[in-house]
Amino acid sequence: MPDRSSHRAEPVHTHPDDVPIETALAALADPVRLQLVRELAGSAAWTHSCGSFRVPVGKAALSHHFAVLRAAGLVEQRDQGPKRLNRLRREEFDTRFPGLLHLVLREEA
Amino acid sequence: MPDRSSHRAEPVHTHPDDVPIETALAALADPVRLQLVRELAGSAAWTHSCGSFRVPVGKAALSHHFAVLRAAGLVEQRDQGPKRLNRLRREEFDTRFPGLLHLVLREEA
Repeated sequence: MPDRSSHRAEPVHTHPDDVPIETALAALADPVRLQLVRELAGSAAWTHSCGSFRVPVGKAALSHHFAVLRAAGLVEQRDQGPKRLNRLRREEFDTRFPGLLHLVLREEA
Repeated sequence: MPDRSSHRAEPVHTHPDDVPIETALAALADPVRLQLVRELAGSAAWTHSCGSFRVPVGKAALSHHFAVLRAAGLVEQRDQGPKRLNRLRREEFDTRFPGLLHLVLREEA
């Protein structure tokens, strides 16, 4: 359950089933977002807070990138106290776009 | 062999092996370029001239889209008299990014 004590708006999610392929491809066609997806793929669900990624962008840009990833059905987020935790929607996304995540994850960063 | 009688500059190509995945994804993350790729996939190589695609864009925009597709290793072009003919680099692209073309071609336009 999300922690409602946070004053931030709850993140809006799109299920991969509702994502056009152009949106999925555009979300992954960015080096920062690819790095976020790769880091999420390399760790357990809900262990990564938004501040814990090794990407060279500021808070506002990071927030935008996560919004793009949510809109592409790639990432689910939930607030836990002051932290916003993340999960790669690997299974749902794989069902919608078989092989696409595998393709981007096998490439070197 | 390309017909050298044309005054246009010869198209510059990039082999799929030299294409970063971000470039391939960005090239395909566009409805006009997806349509071009789909039409090319549905016809024999070198039968489509640049003016023969059913896309709602002008000549300059079309030229830009083809440049993006060449740079992503998706399309090969050669001039034949006044016509610029096209080929989808399906095999080479499939070898570099297995499954990606299949994924975009199976989707409805």
